[in-house]
Amino acid sequence: MVQGLPSPPPGETTYRGYERTQTGHSPTQSGTEDRELTHVGPGTPCGEYLRRFWHPVTLSSQLNDLPLAIRILGENLVTFRDLAGNVGVLHRQCSHRRTSLEYGVIAEHGIRCCYHGWLYDVDGTILETPGEPEDSPIRHSLCHGAYPAREYKGIVFAYMGPPELKPEFPIYDTFELPDDEMIPYLLDMPCNWLQVTENPMDPFHSVFLHTRISRAHFDVSWGAMPIVEWHQMPDKTGIYLTSARRWNDYVWIRTNELAVPNFTQPPDIFQNPDRDKFFTRVGNSKWHLPVDDTNTQIIGWRHFNDTIDLAGKGRRDAVGVGSYDAVGRVKRTYEEQQRVPGDYEAQVGQDTIAVHKLEHLGKTDTGVAMLRQLLRRAIRNVKKGVEPPKPLKNTDGYIPTMAGDVIINVPQTNRTDEEVRSDLGRRIGAIVLDSMPLAHGERQAEIERRVRNEILA
Amino acid sequence: MVQGLPSPPPGETTYRGYERTQTGHSPTQSGTEDRELTHVGPGTPCGEYLRRFWHPVTLSSQLNDLPLAIRILGENLVTFRDLAGNVGVLHRQCSHRRTSLEYGVIAEHGIRCCYHGWLYDVDGTILETPGEPEDSPIRHSLCHGAYPAREYKGIVFAYMGPPELKPEFPIYDTFELPDDEMIPYLLDMPCNWLQVTENPMDPFHSVFLHTRISRAHFDVSWGAMPIVEWHQMPDKTGIYLTSARRWNDYVWIRTNELAVPNFTQPPDIFQNPDRDKFFTRVGNSKWHLPVDDTNTQIIGWRHFNDTIDLAGKGRRDAVGVGSYDAVGRVKRTYEEQQRVPGDYEAQVGQDTIAVHKLEHLGKTDTGVAMLRQLLRRAIRNVKKGVEPPKPLKNTDGYIPTMAGDVIINVPQTNRTDEEVRSDLGRRIGAIVLDSMPLAHGERQAEIERRVRNEILA
Amino acid sequence: MVQGLPSPPPGETTYRGYERTQTGHSPTQSGTEDRELTHVGPGTPCGEYLRRFWHPVTLSSQLNDLPLAIRILGENLVTFRDLAGNVGVLHRQCSHRRTSLEYGVIAEHGIRCCYHGWLYDVDGTILETPGEPEDSPIRHSLCHGAYPAREYKGIVFAYMGPPELKPEFPIYDTFELPDDEMIPYLLDMPCNWLQVTENPMDPFHSVFLHTRISRAHFDVSWGAMPIVEWHQMPDKTGIYLTSARRWNDYVWIRTNELAVPNFTQPPDIFQNPDRDKFFTRVGNSKWHLPVDDTNTQIIGWRHFNDTIDLAGKGRRDAVGVGSYDAVGRVKRTYEEQQRVPGDYEAQVGQDTIAVHKLEHLGKTDTGVAMLRQLLRRAIRNVKKGVEPPKPLKNTDGYIPTMAGDVIINVPQTNRTDEEVRSDLGRRIGAIVLDSMPLAHGERQAEIERRVRNEILA
Repeated sequence: MVQGLPSPPPGETTYRGYERTQTGHSPTQSGTEDRELTHVGPGTPCGEYLRRFWHPVTLSSQLNDLPLAIRILGENLVTFRDLAGNVGVLHRQCSHRRTSLEYGVIAEHGIRCCYHGWLYDVDGTILETPGEPEDSPIRHSLCHGAYPAREYKGIVFAYMGPPELKPEFPIYDTFELPDDEMIPYLLDMPCNWLQVTENPMDPFHSVFLHTRISRAHFDVSWGAMPIVEWHQMPDKTGIYLTSARRWNDYVWIRTNELAVPNFTQPPDIFQNPDRDKFFTRVGNSKWHLPVDDTNTQIIGWRHFNDTIDLAGKGRRDAVGVGSYDAVGRVKRTYEEQQRVPGDYEAQVGQDTIAVHKLEHLGKTDTGVAMLRQLLRRAIRNVKKGVEPPKPLKNTDGYIPTMAGDVIINVPQTNRTDEEVRSDLGRRIGAIVLDSMPLAHGERQAEIERRVRNEILA
Repeated sequence: MVQGLPSPPPGETTYRGYERTQTGHSPTQSGTEDRELTHVGPGTPCGEYLRRFWHPVTLSSQLNDLPLAIRILGENLVTFRDLAGNVGVLHRQCSHRRTSLEYGVIAEHGIRCCYHGWLYDVDGTILETPGEPEDSPIRHSLCHGAYPAREYKGIVFAYMGPPELKPEFPIYDTFELPDDEMIPYLLDMPCNWLQVTENPMDPFHSVFLHTRISRAHFDVSWGAMPIVEWHQMPDKTGIYLTSARRWNDYVWIRTNELAVPNFTQPPDIFQNPDRDKFFTRVGNSKWHLPVDDTNTQIIGWRHFNDTIDLAGKGRRDAVGVGSYDAVGRVKRTYEEQQRVPGDYEAQVGQDTIAVHKLEHLGKTDTGVAMLRQLLRRAIRNVKKGVEPPKPLKNTDGYIPTMAGDVIINVPQTNRTDEEVRSDLGRRIGAIVLDSMPLAHGERQAEIERRVRNEILA
Repeated sequence: MVQGLPSPPPGETTYRGYERTQTGHSPTQSGTEDRELTHVGPGTPCGEYLRRFWHPVTLSSQLNDLPLAIRILGENLVTFRDLAGNVGVLHRQCSHRRTSLEYGVIAEHGIRCCYHGWLYDVDGTILETPGEPEDSPIRHSLCHGAYPAREYKGIVFAYMGPPELKPEFPIYDTFELPDDEMIPYLLDMPCNWLQVTENPMDPFHSVFLHTRISRAHFDVSWGAMPIVEWHQMPDKTGIYLTSARRWNDYVWIRTNELAVPNFTQPPDIFQNPDRDKFFTRVGNSKWHLPVDDTNTQIIGWRHFNDTIDLAGKGRRDAVGVGSYDAVGRVKRTYEEQQRVPGDYEAQVGQDTIAVHKLEHLGKTDTGVAMLRQLLRRAIRNVKKGVEPPKPLKNTDGYIPTMAGDVIINVPQTNRTDEEVRSDLGRRIGAIVLDSMPLAHGERQAEIERRVRNEILA
């Protein structure tokens, strides 16, 4: 599967920079990005699709006694927690004379514009227009742009779509685990949301970017080449994949998914495949928030608990606003970027908005291609009035997810190891999928039982 | 009077951010500003209108032994004082090969380009083209772009319109008061000139922005809600307004005007209405200079004398280039901006160029609406060849102005105070207006005489 | 020869700024630059013409163990020296997923992308796609954009045009002089390449900018007004000029050329015409590299040897990346720029892209006008398929150049000195031209012999 512009004719294939530039492989940003998948502002096809979901907009820790200017899906907004404790997410500019509410004063209920004191409740109701006559009809004939907000475990979420289509707030199974500490974080990525979101669909970059290229960012076992398969989720809410690696006497099956449009949960990045493990869960739950067409924020939680990161490499104190406990996630000095490139450099380095038609995708990019196809279909569906499917729930009432690691002792045999891993990846992926309806704990037990009986026995 | 896009239908009026964004109330700059009133470059309707007036371009203190690059009405210029003492305001780029004259050398007469030594007099005459043959006709067949300049009390003014329409340099009555110290100042506002200029037409912002919102920027009496009336000046050179406030046993009538396009004089901002006063004059005379479509400079004088600021709150040493002796007039740290917003935040916060059609004007915005109407009419008149009216003069030969405070002891009675203040505002405003032809001193005496006879008697 | 827009009518010629702005002499950048001569990106007429020549792209000293992001002729590129010592100049973005190769890892042969490890040889051959299956056809069906590179005396050159039209790498006679130390340097000029390149066609700026305006940048003798003549090179590869100055009892004939598009060699800037000299050669050999439409780099060598700079004013340690041993070649503080303007201020001060139609050229600009005409013809020729002429070679096998100084003792006589200098300039210029085929040394001897016999005898 090779995509892109025509290849050079057979024969001379050296020093063809001039020809490739002439045929449109310009080394400069051509502005010919795939707008349907990358533009997120009001009224754009992708923007409308994205407005069918709850998105994180900041961390609770960022809401203090001053309003916070934010930009989400290309809209300038202001968020705050009023004195009664309610969180507002409002259009940033005052409905009266358009002064920015980032200079407003937080009130008992809502926020007051600094210029003439108009007071807006968190739902957009205009509570006061104090300079106007007492009987002024203005405040009853208008409302201010407001979006429903919800705080959950230290993150502020908002829904910016049509009110009548507002989905239930999504609580995934990994958000309510026992003895799990979740630390919110927020990272800036000055590039389009899609290239950030494609990254988890591509487990091969872990082999190169994270392990073989400069130095092992996590554990050397990441350098083992996986056998990967991608599948659509049965409820059509995303794509899951299985990566099967060999590490000494162990086979390590990682399952993971991307819940469209932009939620993903890498399992334990500090995983060390040195003993049997049965579906240890995630180290990180995160959304890739489109700030606008050329900026993205990664907002989510790092998980700390006794089932992951057994070597204790994670650092709670390094996780927060603009910081993370793994290399290459935030902007560093240019020399550091060059010496040890990470996700930041690989993704931001694809250009402000990556131009797909100048790529040449290979077999390893199957997940990237699937994701684009799924998103394009969903975007066109919304345009036609077909709303995105709702996710299923497990017996706990949470949305079940695929992300986790199963590690089993399977020494190498005469059979080719690719076949072994391919077979194990498929069978264990199916077991993990089958067990989705079960509550946490029960699910781990069921996965262990079936793996022992059906595979290790 | 509610303007703007259609209001929501009655019924549900909460969380309508999505709908308001869809119907054009986009929280992002839409580029749909009112170009007729806001664009100031050469050849634009508003730019041509503005070019019918003298404008301040810098302070005398800024002219030293090096030329000064300035930008006025969207034109790149250079200004300097030559060794003979004449001030030049020239097109910035050399007529020969377009090198910037900001790198030129100031000469006995005019300025010499650094590249090939062409010498330009302050009136644009090309005095020398020293590399060219002695008999070269170039310098006689060309002139360099130059504008008439005038220095007055520490400010450099220029006239950038058609020479045959050059108006007399305007000297207002407040510029030649006895025992008055005038300190020039210059402040940057990174936004369109119109939103800066609308501000003085809106005395209600003093109640909120300057007093009730964060803390009293001046005196707490500013927090009293005024009764306001707006009127066109009889000579059609602007709008004046009266604001009538109650403060304890006193009624405080402030009169003020905006001489179109951009001259205004706030009376004493440190006014304290605690005794009878009869037309104390201004604390500040200023122009809102359009640098270009998205930048404005406030250039003017702070007045220091014994009739205003009786409590001595003003500070001469804080007034100058980029500084002022009241809070919120210059850029501060973002936290200071948020904690104590002032004129800078309110006006710059309206966006680079405020979008009028997304506003919702109320009764308090009557002056703003009147100003826009008057400017639009004047701009269209100039386009049709009808020049702006000339201002009248008083018996001193100066242009009389309305700005001042009258404060009288009128204890509250049974009559509703709104009626009292409305009546006093109108009658005292009429007296101030009637007295315009009189010389300073005489005018104060006449105002006191009539107020005592007609109102207090 | 006065060019540009109509001149003012006779009569009033003062304070005509308004009229000149209205008639298009806008003091603001009008975007109406001469695109045919100034735009350099892929596919533009001038860009295609420029792609027929070798250009310097960086200094060898800049190639270390990390790749270097560069921008040349509007293309984003990366350059590096691989571990085998070969220099690559590649399209910056990876052919696979478009990650920037500035974050790549330099390999034994070529450079490896950080994201998925694709390995590119310096000629664009894709050596490895390590995540793809072993039998993947991708790497054979594609190549990466690459340009031929060559290192020469500390400068890296590349050829970015059609491979079949690649010219021989140009070695000029001044590059292989005996006992000559050549120190590479690189300076940034944030403006269009053409205004930088016009500068050496205009020896009059030396009189003003470099000597009379602020202070003598080099030697006071530069302030003497020269008699100048410009000629096309016989092989049509550029323009040469002769400047004849009187200095006490000496006449100083400087010859110099511009080899189109962008190579020029100022003879000794510290020349002091106080004794007979016969064709001392250059102090500086340099190209004006178009980075993109609005940025230029000057890349070249300063020469240090016993035949030039006899007073030892040059400083080897001041020559390098971003520094030079003469005033006004790099960005300084704004006050320094204003007090002692140099080439940087004069050329960058012409605007990002100088607008020719607002200039008024004089006799002193004859060379500038000739250069534009020659470039325009060459650009149109390339568009028609007529390739630029190839330069001739001397008996050493190098491309002979005109740049040098001849200084002879010719006391002033009754004859007008203009006539004397005009005559000497023409005759000595002809001798220098005639001697081009001779090898260095022989040529000096021949010039001295003929000057002594034909002129001094």
